[in-house]
Amino acid sequence: MVWELTALVAGAISIVAALFLHKWVMSQANENQRMAEFSVAIQSGAAAYLKRLFQALGGLACVVAIVIFVALGWQDAVAYLLGAGCSALAAYTGMYVATRANARVAWAARTSLAKAFPVGFFAGGVMGLSVVGLALVGMTILYMIFRDASVVLGFSFGASSLALLAKAGGGIYTKTADIGADLVGKVEFNLDEDDPRNPAVIADNVGDNVGDIAGVGADIFDSYVASVVAVMLLGAALYTEQFVVFPLLLGGIGIVSSLIGMLFVRPGESNDPNKALNTGTIATTVIFAVLATITTFLIGISNPWGLIVPTIAGLLAGIVIGFTSDHFTDIDNYAVQSTADSAVTGPAILILRGFSYGLVSAVPSIIGIVVAMLVAWFSAEHFGIAGTYGVSIAAVGMLSITGMIVSADAYGPIVDNAKGCAEAGGESEETIRICDRLDAAGNTAKAITKGFAIGAAALTVLALFAAYSETVGITRIDLRTPGVVAGVLLGSIMPPLFAALTILSVGKNAFIMVEEIRRQFREIPGLIEGKVKPDSDRCVDIATKGALKELLIPGILSFAAPVAVGIILGPHALGGFLAGSIISGIIFALFMANSGGLWDNAKKFIEDGAHGGKGSEAHKAAVVGDTVGDPFKDTAGPSLNTLITVMCLSASLFGPIIAKFALFGF
Amino acid sequence: MVWELTALVAGAISIVAALFLHKWVMSQANENQRMAEFSVAIQSGAAAYLKRLFQALGGLACVVAIVIFVALGWQDAVAYLLGAGCSALAAYTGMYVATRANARVAWAARTSLAKAFPVGFFAGGVMGLSVVGLALVGMTILYMIFRDASVVLGFSFGASSLALLAKAGGGIYTKTADIGADLVGKVEFNLDEDDPRNPAVIADNVGDNVGDIAGVGADIFDSYVASVVAVMLLGAALYTEQFVVFPLLLGGIGIVSSLIGMLFVRPGESNDPNKALNTGTIATTVIFAVLATITTFLIGISNPWGLIVPTIAGLLAGIVIGFTSDHFTDIDNYAVQSTADSAVTGPAILILRGFSYGLVSAVPSIIGIVVAMLVAWFSAEHFGIAGTYGVSIAAVGMLSITGMIVSADAYGPIVDNAKGCAEAGGESEETIRICDRLDAAGNTAKAITKGFAIGAAALTVLALFAAYSETVGITRIDLRTPGVVAGVLLGSIMPPLFAALTILSVGKNAFIMVEEIRRQFREIPGLIEGKVKPDSDRCVDIATKGALKELLIPGILSFAAPVAVGIILGPHALGGFLAGSIISGIIFALFMANSGGLWDNAKKFIEDGAHGGKGSEAHKAAVVGDTVGDPFKDTAGPSLNTLITVMCLSASLFGPIIAKFALFGF
Repeated sequence: MVWELTALVAGAISIVAALFLHKWVMSQANENQRMAEFSVAIQSGAAAYLKRLFQALGGLACVVAIVIFVALGWQDAVAYLLGAGCSALAAYTGMYVATRANARVAWAARTSLAKAFPVGFFAGGVMGLSVVGLALVGMTILYMIFRDASVVLGFSFGASSLALLAKAGGGIYTKTADIGADLVGKVEFNLDEDDPRNPAVIADNVGDNVGDIAGVGADIFDSYVASVVAVMLLGAALYTEQFVVFPLLLGGIGIVSSLIGMLFVRPGESNDPNKALNTGTIATTVIFAVLATITTFLIGISNPWGLIVPTIAGLLAGIVIGFTSDHFTDIDNYAVQSTADSAVTGPAILILRGFSYGLVSAVPSIIGIVVAMLVAWFSAEHFGIAGTYGVSIAAVGMLSITGMIVSADAYGPIVDNAKGCAEAGGESEETIRICDRLDAAGNTAKAITKGFAIGAAALTVLALFAAYSETVGITRIDLRTPGVVAGVLLGSIMPPLFAALTILSVGKNAFIMVEEIRRQFREIPGLIEGKVKPDSDRCVDIATKGALKELLIPGILSFAAPVAVGIILGPHALGGFLAGSIISGIIFALFMANSGGLWDNAKKFIEDGAHGGKGSEAHKAAVVGDTVGDPFKDTAGPSLNTLITVMCLSASLFGPIIAKFALFGF
Repeated sequence: MVWELTALVAGAISIVAALFLHKWVMSQANENQRMAEFSVAIQSGAAAYLKRLFQALGGLACVVAIVIFVALGWQDAVAYLLGAGCSALAAYTGMYVATRANARVAWAARTSLAKAFPVGFFAGGVMGLSVVGLALVGMTILYMIFRDASVVLGFSFGASSLALLAKAGGGIYTKTADIGADLVGKVEFNLDEDDPRNPAVIADNVGDNVGDIAGVGADIFDSYVASVVAVMLLGAALYTEQFVVFPLLLGGIGIVSSLIGMLFVRPGESNDPNKALNTGTIATTVIFAVLATITTFLIGISNPWGLIVPTIAGLLAGIVIGFTSDHFTDIDNYAVQSTADSAVTGPAILILRGFSYGLVSAVPSIIGIVVAMLVAWFSAEHFGIAGTYGVSIAAVGMLSITGMIVSADAYGPIVDNAKGCAEAGGESEETIRICDRLDAAGNTAKAITKGFAIGAAALTVLALFAAYSETVGITRIDLRTPGVVAGVLLGSIMPPLFAALTILSVGKNAFIMVEEIRRQFREIPGLIEGKVKPDSDRCVDIATKGALKELLIPGILSFAAPVAVGIILGPHALGGFLAGSIISGIIFALFMANSGGLWDNAKKFIEDGAHGGKGSEAHKAAVVGDTVGDPFKDTAGPSLNTLITVMCLSASLFGPIIAKFALFGF
């Protein structure tokens, strides 16, 4: 009971801290009217999108809640709605403050980097702290009321369902706007990025917020909750209640560590925002490791080492995967530069290289995940704890510093938008240069988070996979049986199929967007001369409607496919299905994220002056690569983690019923 | 014994028939001197490449043979060398006649399509019949001497090792030359395909032969042998000797059916080569089904239905997957046309669409494989035969008509080359048009073979996977154990890694080739005016050396990785490793083949007049897509089947030793 209260208090502190940071950010000044207008346009565009998204998802959530109510009882239905609601609230809060912070960061950048940086970082902190706070409070309260881990599973399923659609929808939105704006604005009319004459610029900036902030917020909320739930389910199946509540306690320690760690995030004398963010991450990690070790020993749990070694193994693996994952996509690295070199032969070989290096770059991360899993498993077993429980604790360990990681990540799109504000507001070169430096640090933070998120998601789904078997009560998932092989093959095609459908959606919507932008330049007199404002609302509308419409098929597929496989082929085949989707999901998530990042940086490398710089033939080829990579890294890639999480959760939730009604028992 | 003799005689008949066809093809006339010269240049280029390839591989094979001799005894070492030798011989024979048939087809096309078609088809038949004949004779003799299925496993390993390197090497060769020739010739100098002024044209045509004929020949030889060996191993582990020899008998029936089926391949009155090839395939299928059923009942084996239903299920699945796999890549289909449509926005969205549709197109094939596997498994079990044996018999059933399928497939590059000869020889428009029509039919046959080969390889590796477990003596490969999960994750990264390395090799070599072609146009006076011949040998040399050099790392990786995983993590983890590589291997093989085909046809669709036709901006974008797709469909994609087969075979061969010396026993 003390553990639960600790978690609850820590969660509450996190929410209060988020509110405090929010108030502080809002108290910052912005006196540039044009920047304020630009910011307001983004705010209203983002709010309009989120409103329509949540309306659509709200209806869907009610339908699913009714299904859950009928199939599993009211407790799970309530938990499901609460999970979806908390996830939506965290995403909304993050986006609310982000869209208001952008102009304030730009205004502060007029003074100095040291003044602007905290505005950006603390605005990001609102989301980081909201995510962990709402998640931990939600789970703890549910568990305190029902004392049943499977009700918390409903919460997690709600959070993940919302995250999947928020992430995929946001990804489709942001890339529709981005590609549309680039193809017509940059390529056909030679406009700069964020040129206010471009009708899709507002939609593009809205996209950054709904994709990179609301989407990522919902995504990490879902991983965080899922990792805790996996431990709770395994704890309930294998051990006593102590082991069920332990991850909540770890979550509480993680929040305290993140709060302390955030105090270390200061640009300091070196004026280096990148270093500031990294210092914060490392400080949080160390503080968490120390606090978690001490606490585990103090609380008098049996086998403390069996819990602490996997926790720290997971934590270290997360950091290592995070920091190394951007190695391949780093602009100073051979992979990026040789991809850029091939731009002189045109786009084809550039694309082949980026594609190939993306695949190669998945290798170290996968080895990292395997090592983390094996270390967690065997260190746990060595100290008398079940290996599956050890792996799931490693996932929680990895995600325990989420508060800090998400804060640093959300900082990225905020300062990116700040740059857009400064340009739209006609601020000085110096201000824009400061915004650029803030932005560069944001890109690194984003790369680290990406690797971190994929590593954490991989361990989490492995834990969920184990939890599924426990929940359904199958003791093995044997690759020598035909049902499991069938399941594995069918499951493995799900992530690539989902990725393909979302990319096709982007292509389709971008097409419509391109037509609309061309129409405006053609039909609105004075637009190209900058005398008249473009009809941005129309572009926002196209992106919004397109994203929501295109979510339908992949959304249904991800919910229906596991249930269908389970009902037709039985629970063992469903286990195989989950395994297959995890395997190909991890590969495609890593490869798409890294190839996309690589092409992006190859373009930047050329823009920095290589092979003729901006405007050269090589640059045009690199722009093609970047456009191909955009939906890879911002639409399809990041949705895949959530896809496999959702499928594992839905299988665990409905597993017992599926097992009862399965047509075949392969 | 009668069964074995039947197989032996059928195999011998096949070889004699191949010799007879060879003689007939060589007796055909070609009186155009320039065509003859062009053909001779291709012959000597191809022979030079194969000679160096086989020299390099010969040395490697001896090293491996010594390792096998030390580890497993002389019988396996001899079988290994024999397998590699037979595979090389089949590939060499096919290529020998193909490079001599091209000019003869072109000369016959001066008269009529009806006269030219049989020259092309029977030349392809030489390879088709050599492949099945040599494979069946080799396996049967080995089994008759040693009466041990595991010795035949050595034969299969030899065949597959050679096939992997021949396929990947040929794939790197052909695309190095093709991309190099296109990038400089077509794009920079506006030359036509096969323009004799282009220094890389000979290398390009050599590449078609070493990649599409020698490579595919070795590839299908290896699948064919592996499928039979899987049944023999399972038969030996589970049943009596009858069940070991049964697949050899089926192979013999397949040869007889193919020989009869080939008589149905006649362009007839409709003058439609495509119809002729399809009629031959369908006739072979029907004849095989009837003969196999009758034979199975006559020979007095127990449970005939348990063998015949899986055989026919596999056969039908192969046909269905083959005929439907080209649906997505068909030029009249929505996927190709909408990909072509997106060319008007430039290459980026075209590439995204082709990529996505390639992923989507993997879905029906995977469902087809799953259904074939489940039907084979449960029909076998229903009639009292072990499910694994049923699946392996289905693979043999699928591959039983290999003789006909390979003949139709090899026809493709022969008539493609014939067109090159006709152009180089300055033949009339009408002759070139006839060659074009022959070529179009070849493309369809190639698409069918591709689907068929992947389906067959998938069932074969599933059978080999079962055979591995039996050989090593593990009763289950449980996804709930950490070693298996680690193995699955590590295995799943192998096919994408192999694909990436071979594609990077193509990019690297093409770069060197581009420089060389540019140098020649710059430094050889009179070349561009057509007064002087280019230095084609230099280009052939670059392609040859590059391909051999680049084989080293992926080659070592594919042999060493499974052994390393087995030695470090133990036999269960190695089982997981194989499963992981099968899963991602099937997905990447299907997706890469289909995306590549799609881009190719999107380009053709535009060349046929859509969106401005040849020379338009849309066409340029489509050429980029086609260049990206080239190594997808001709280098990386087709090597992946062989990669997973080699890994399964090497695991089975060395499995018992690995099990003994494994460091950990996860």
